[in-house]
Amino acid sequence: MPLMTSWVASANTAGNPFPLNNLPYGVFSIGAETPRCGVAIGDMILDVTAAEESGLIALADYALFDMPFWNPLMEEGPAVWAALRARLVALLAEGAAERDTVEPYLAPMAAAQLHMPFAVSEYTDFYAGRHHATNVGTMFRGVENALPPNWLHIPIGYNGRASSVVVSGTEIRRPWGQLKGPNDTQPRFAPCARFDLELEMGAIVGTPSDGPITVQEADDHIFGYVLLNDWSARDIQAWEYQPLGPFQAKATATSISPWIVTKAALEPFRRDTPAREVALLDHLKDCGPMLYDIELEVTMAPEGQPASTIASTNYTEMYYSAAQQLAHHTTSGCPMHAGDLLGSGTISGPTKPERGSLLELSWGGKEPLTLESGETRSFIEDGDTLTLKGAAQGDGYVIGFGDCVGTVLPALETPYER
Amino acid sequence: MPLMTSWVASANTAGNPFPLNNLPYGVFSIGAETPRCGVAIGDMILDVTAAEESGLIALADYALFDMPFWNPLMEEGPAVWAALRARLVALLAEGAAERDTVEPYLAPMAAAQLHMPFAVSEYTDFYAGRHHATNVGTMFRGVENALPPNWLHIPIGYNGRASSVVVSGTEIRRPWGQLKGPNDTQPRFAPCARFDLELEMGAIVGTPSDGPITVQEADDHIFGYVLLNDWSARDIQAWEYQPLGPFQAKATATSISPWIVTKAALEPFRRDTPAREVALLDHLKDCGPMLYDIELEVTMAPEGQPASTIASTNYTEMYYSAAQQLAHHTTSGCPMHAGDLLGSGTISGPTKPERGSLLELSWGGKEPLTLESGETRSFIEDGDTLTLKGAAQGDGYVIGFGDCVGTVLPALETPYER
Repeated sequence: MPLMTSWVASANTAGNPFPLNNLPYGVFSIGAETPRCGVAIGDMILDVTAAEESGLIALADYALFDMPFWNPLMEEGPAVWAALRARLVALLAEGAAERDTVEPYLAPMAAAQLHMPFAVSEYTDFYAGRHHATNVGTMFRGVENALPPNWLHIPIGYNGRASSVVVSGTEIRRPWGQLKGPNDTQPRFAPCARFDLELEMGAIVGTPSDGPITVQEADDHIFGYVLLNDWSARDIQAWEYQPLGPFQAKATATSISPWIVTKAALEPFRRDTPAREVALLDHLKDCGPMLYDIELEVTMAPEGQPASTIASTNYTEMYYSAAQQLAHHTTSGCPMHAGDLLGSGTISGPTKPERGSLLELSWGGKEPLTLESGETRSFIEDGDTLTLKGAAQGDGYVIGFGDCVGTVLPALETPYER
Repeated sequence: MPLMTSWVASANTAGNPFPLNNLPYGVFSIGAETPRCGVAIGDMILDVTAAEESGLIALADYALFDMPFWNPLMEEGPAVWAALRARLVALLAEGAAERDTVEPYLAPMAAAQLHMPFAVSEYTDFYAGRHHATNVGTMFRGVENALPPNWLHIPIGYNGRASSVVVSGTEIRRPWGQLKGPNDTQPRFAPCARFDLELEMGAIVGTPSDGPITVQEADDHIFGYVLLNDWSARDIQAWEYQPLGPFQAKATATSISPWIVTKAALEPFRRDTPAREVALLDHLKDCGPMLYDIELEVTMAPEGQPASTIASTNYTEMYYSAAQQLAHHTTSGCPMHAGDLLGSGTISGPTKPERGSLLELSWGGKEPLTLESGETRSFIEDGDTLTLKGAAQGDGYVIGFGDCVGTVLPALETPYER
């Protein structure tokens, strides 16, 4: 598919992440305005809430966009998702008859503040990137036992904390936690010293379910994708995670990019999962290409210094697709809701510069990274800004996500100060 | 504190679980009526939604009870919680001046259907009963390594699935899952064969927080308690839980009792946690009695047969209080919301008849239980009804919770049938 041209000129510019092919969904405000639903087009945002109020967009007998999140549209299901996209294309395409009516509903993106684009119902994080799991497993259990016995048979996941999911730009406070190093005789309560990022994609469930669903149904239920940084306190995790998994190590924050890129926009980029050395059981088998060719990059910028690229990889490195993860999530009958967020798990490629976490990049702190500024890093230091970028390269256009950015603030002097 | 008498005569009857001292909060409907908020008093329910509409209860400038869940009251905080309780006592006490006005708002409990009393924001389950953790640890890791190294230092917990929490009376469908026994060469997808209950108490967060809170603050933030059965698929769990903890094994359902018993009603029953062999770090130290003397019982009734008591224990067997669990939950800065549900972890006493799960009672299936009917059980069979009961024995009165009941239905013939 080539570039679809828009009368919003900036959307047709080479490299602009928001051409008419994309049309991602966000929530924005300008100045002291109430946040409302918006669609990115070039360097502008179409105010969908106002467009619905005026009757320019009318998909249901009731308002879908009068709340500052996209969950009501998600609940409508794929037919209405397609109807909205078709209407947006009609309104914004080159030569659109309604251009003059639409133009007043455009706001400059540069002036907008972006908010959480949806209400996170529940948040699940997976561990489904093979290179990441192999790296981490090698560090902790040795190369012979790197992958747990179940890893090639199910997408391992755990429930995270929806309340801790924040939008890009939110500052991240370094957490306190209970820590005990291998040589310590007693645990202590102290600020995390091994704070890390995890480069992930997040899949957002649109259609609710109440019982097991197939992989194909799961793919149909997914509404869209965001970039996701699952901030991780490695020292808290090391002490707490046996026997029931990560808990406070993953509860400080998870950042997501501000724009939900829809499945429709990603259709041209569908790719198969990698070849499998062990066949999956029927209920988890691939039934079509359900990964996407999305180039991913992480940069780190110490306070007041330029950003260095510390990792570059691709979403196609995942061993399990989001559809397979969602299908597995429902096997026991677990009800899923619109707004459930599924983290892919850390995405790492096969080589060192493709690793999606500092734990892997610095090999547990043993091989510190050197940044462009000459500084070195094993884990995140106070003032560091981490940025995730994602782009699908089309035929003369790019599908972008908007960066997923977070700056790490120093820990509170005492955790109970108010 | 002695029995507080009510003009609702049944509330003064010996053994009635809902005297004026209790006043637990639920959501009910009669026939095809819309569910509304109610308070149990004897064998009646006071329709709080209607009482607020009429002006008989007026706590805020806006309606607190026009939705069928108690979360809006939770958000108001302890002063409003106390004001409601004082008003209810004034309306329902023996000799109340407004008796004639109140009486039309009473409905017979026997005619009512009970619904989920609150919207579960997120659900966390702990592993904080020492006898349970020791029993399970002994079975899986041997008596020498029964308690993990962190167990005496932090209340181990994991995030569960809020969407799977259901009210007492909801039938529970035996789940399918991916299983692999220790002697199997390959995993298979099949119905769970080791389906279990877990006897727990659930604490409900009322006051939101956004950063670490102390144990005393945590106790202040808790709104009330319910009985909780965390249905568990032991065979799914055994295959999936390494390295990131239980996931689908715990996602089929968690049942709760229908009435939220408030902290105010439980005040006379506060008890200390057990003596500790290792001192807790300061931020988790006890700062007063924050457990409660609540007698707990589990019965099992095979289909068409009488119920046998299979376990009897007490909430005071917990090693960590809900306040300590909530304080730990916030150490990393994790935001907590009104309606967050915290499962205590399975409550077992020191002797065999005090064990709160079939895993422990049948010692992993090696020592099947014999029920009164003569049938034996290692795990739950189709048609079995499990009932949790809880009561705090006061001076001439009882604080009851309402039973937490669930009947297990056979697995679907194929999991994807519709």
